Amino acid sequence: MQTVSDYQKIFIQFLELHSFEKEPVNLYAPIGYIMGLGGKRLRPVLALMGCDAYGGDIQKAMPVALAIEVFHNFSLVHDDIMDAAPLRRGAATVHIKWDVNTGILSGDAMLIMAYQALEGYEPSLYKSLTQLFSKTALEVCEGQQWDVDFEEKEAVTENAYLHMIIQKTAVLVAGALKMGAMVAGAPLEEQEKMHAFGLQLGIAFQVQDDYLDAFGDPKTFGKTVGGDIVNNKKTLMYIKALELSDLLQRKALGDLFSLQPENAAAKIAQVKALFTATGAAAAMQNTIAFYTQNAFSILETMDITAENKKMLTDFGNQLMGRQV
Amino acid sequence: MQTVSDYQKIFIQFLELHSFEKEPVNLYAPIGYIMGLGGKRLRPVLALMGCDAYGGDIQKAMPVALAIEVFHNFSLVHDDIMDAAPLRRGAATVHIKWDVNTGILSGDAMLIMAYQALEGYEPSLYKSLTQLFSKTALEVCEGQQWDVDFEEKEAVTENAYLHMIIQKTAVLVAGALKMGAMVAGAPLEEQEKMHAFGLQLGIAFQVQDDYLDAFGDPKTFGKTVGGDIVNNKKTLMYIKALELSDLLQRKALGDLFSLQPENAAAKIAQVKALFTATGAAAAMQNTIAFYTQNAFSILETMDITAENKKMLTDFGNQLMGRQV
Repeated sequence: MQTVSDYQKIFIQFLELHSFEKEPVNLYAPIGYIMGLGGKRLRPVLALMGCDAYGGDIQKAMPVALAIEVFHNFSLVHDDIMDAAPLRRGAATVHIKWDVNTGILSGDAMLIMAYQALEGYEPSLYKSLTQLFSKTALEVCEGQQWDVDFEEKEAVTENAYLHMIIQKTAVLVAGALKMGAMVAGAPLEEQEKMHAFGLQLGIAFQVQDDYLDAFGDPKTFGKTVGGDIVNNKKTLMYIKALELSDLLQRKALGDLFSLQPENAAAKIAQVKALFTATGAAAAMQNTIAFYTQNAFSILETMDITAENKKMLTDFGNQLMGRQV
Repeated sequence: MQTVSDYQKIFIQFLELHSFEKEPVNLYAPIGYIMGLGGKRLRPVLALMGCDAYGGDIQKAMPVALAIEVFHNFSLVHDDIMDAAPLRRGAATVHIKWDVNTGILSGDAMLIMAYQALEGYEPSLYKSLTQLFSKTALEVCEGQQWDVDFEEKEAVTENAYLHMIIQKTAVLVAGALKMGAMVAGAPLEEQEKMHAFGLQLGIAFQVQDDYLDAFGDPKTFGKTVGGDIVNNKKTLMYIKALELSDLLQRKALGDLFSLQPENAAAKIAQVKALFTATGAAAAMQNTIAFYTQNAFSILETMDITAENKKMLTDFGNQLMGRQV
C-alpha cells in the first residue's frame, strides 16, 4: 500500500521533471519560483489517491495533480497580494520578490496553465474534468470574497462561516479526490462519494486550522500561533465564543477584538482564556470530530478495497493529527 | 448581408439578457459593471462573423462571443490595475470604483467564467475551443509581459515589437474569428486561413493604433492623442523614427523621450514633427497597408461566398478607416 509520503515523493519527482522555464522570463520565473517553494503537496496527493483508490494508474492522474497544484499556487500568489503577505513558506512572496504587477500577471498565466495541464485527456474526460475544475475554481474565488466580506461585517453566523470555508478550502480537497476518481473511471455514484468525503474532510481540516491558530504547538503548526487573534479575525472559534459567552465574556471579547495592542502576547493569552472559559475550544473539538466522523462514514460506504479505505483513513488521521 | 453594426446589435441583445448578478455581490457586481461599460464589442463580433462566413448559425456562436468578450474584459480589469489607469471607456476602472483586491479577484472569476461559457458545446468541439482559448489567453499574458519588459529596455527592435503586439492583440482577433469558424464546422484548412487573416488584420489594427496616438483626430480617436508620447512609450512609430533618423534627429528624439515636461503640447508637437521628418510616419502607413493587404490576400483564398468575403473586407476597411 502506498503511504501519503510515497504519493508525495511520486508527485515531487514528476514536478521536478516539469520545467516552468520559458520566455518571457519575467512571466514564467515567478511561476517556477512559487511552484518550487514546496509545501505539503496535499492537494495533488489527493488527486493521486482518488485515482489509486479505484484501481487507476496514478501516472494517468499526474496531469490532474499538476493542474490542482498549479491552481492552488495561483490562488496563493493572488491571495498573498490581497493580504499584503510578505512571506509564504518562509520565503518572500512573489509580489515582494518581484512586484504586484508580476504577481497578478504570473498568477493569471498559472490559472490558464492549470487548464492546459488537462489537455492530454480524451475530449469526454477532458470536458468532465475541466467543468469540475471551473466550478471548483469559481467557488474558491467566491469563498475568498466571502472571507474578505466577513472582515467588514459586525456579526458572522456559524452557517455563513461554514459556507465560506467550504468554498474557500473544502471544494478543492473534494475536487482533487473526485478528479482522481474520474481519471480512474470510477462510477458516477462513487465519484460523488469521493467528493462528499473530501468536502467533509476539508471542512474538518479548515476548522482545525482555526483551532490550531489559538491552541496549536508553535513547533509543529506551520504559521504563527495567535495570528488570527492578533489580526482580530472572526474565525469559527471567535464566532462560537461569542455565541456561548455570557454578557461579561462577550464584552471582554468584543473589547479585545477591537484593538491591536503592542503587547500581542497578553492579548493572545486573554483571548485564549476566554475561548476556553466560554466552551468554544471544546465546541471546536466537537465540530472537528463531527466532520471527520462524517468523512469516515462516507468512506465506509465506498466500493473500494479495505486496503484503500485504510489508505484514505490514514490520510485523514494524519491530516487531522497534525498536532493536538 | 449582415453589417458589422447588425452583429453588434445581435451580440448586445444577447448580452443584455445575460445576468452577471450573483452572490457574493462584491465579486460579481464589478463583473456586471465592466461588462456593461460598452465598447465596440469588436471581438465578439469577429466570432459571429467567423461563424457566419462558413454558413454556421450565429446563435450557436454566441457562447464563443461571450467567452471572448468576458476574457477581453478580464484582461482590461487586470491591465488597468497594472497601468494604474483611473478611467476605462470614460468611467472609473474597477480597481478605482471598488479597490485593487476586488479588481484582482473579480478578474480571476471572469477568466474562469470565460471557460464556463463554452460548456454547452459537445466534448470534441468544447475541447478544440478551450484549447485554442487557453493558448490564446496565455499568449495575451505573454504579450502583456513583453510590453511591460519593453518599458525598462533601452532599445527594442521592430521584430520584438511586432512579436509583442501579435501576442497582446492579434492572437485574440485571430482566435475569435477561428473559434467562430470552428463552431460553423469549417474545414481545418479554412479555420487556419481565418486565423491567419485575423492575425494580419490584428497587427494592422495595432500598428494603426500606434499611428493614431500621434496623428489621430482627437474627435474620433477613443484615447487622448499624444498619450504614448507624453508617457515616453516606445511604440513602433518611435522605433521606426530612431531607425530612420540621422544623428541630430536621434539625439533630439532621445532627449524628448527622457523627460516629462509640464508643457505636454509642445513636446507632442516636436515629437510629431520628428516622426514626420524622419519618414517614420510614412513608414507606419506603409506597414499598416502591408498587413492590411496581407489580410485581404488571405481572405481571397478562402472558400467562402463573395458576399461573405465582402462582409469581412468591409469589416477590415471599417476597422482600418476609423480615422486617417
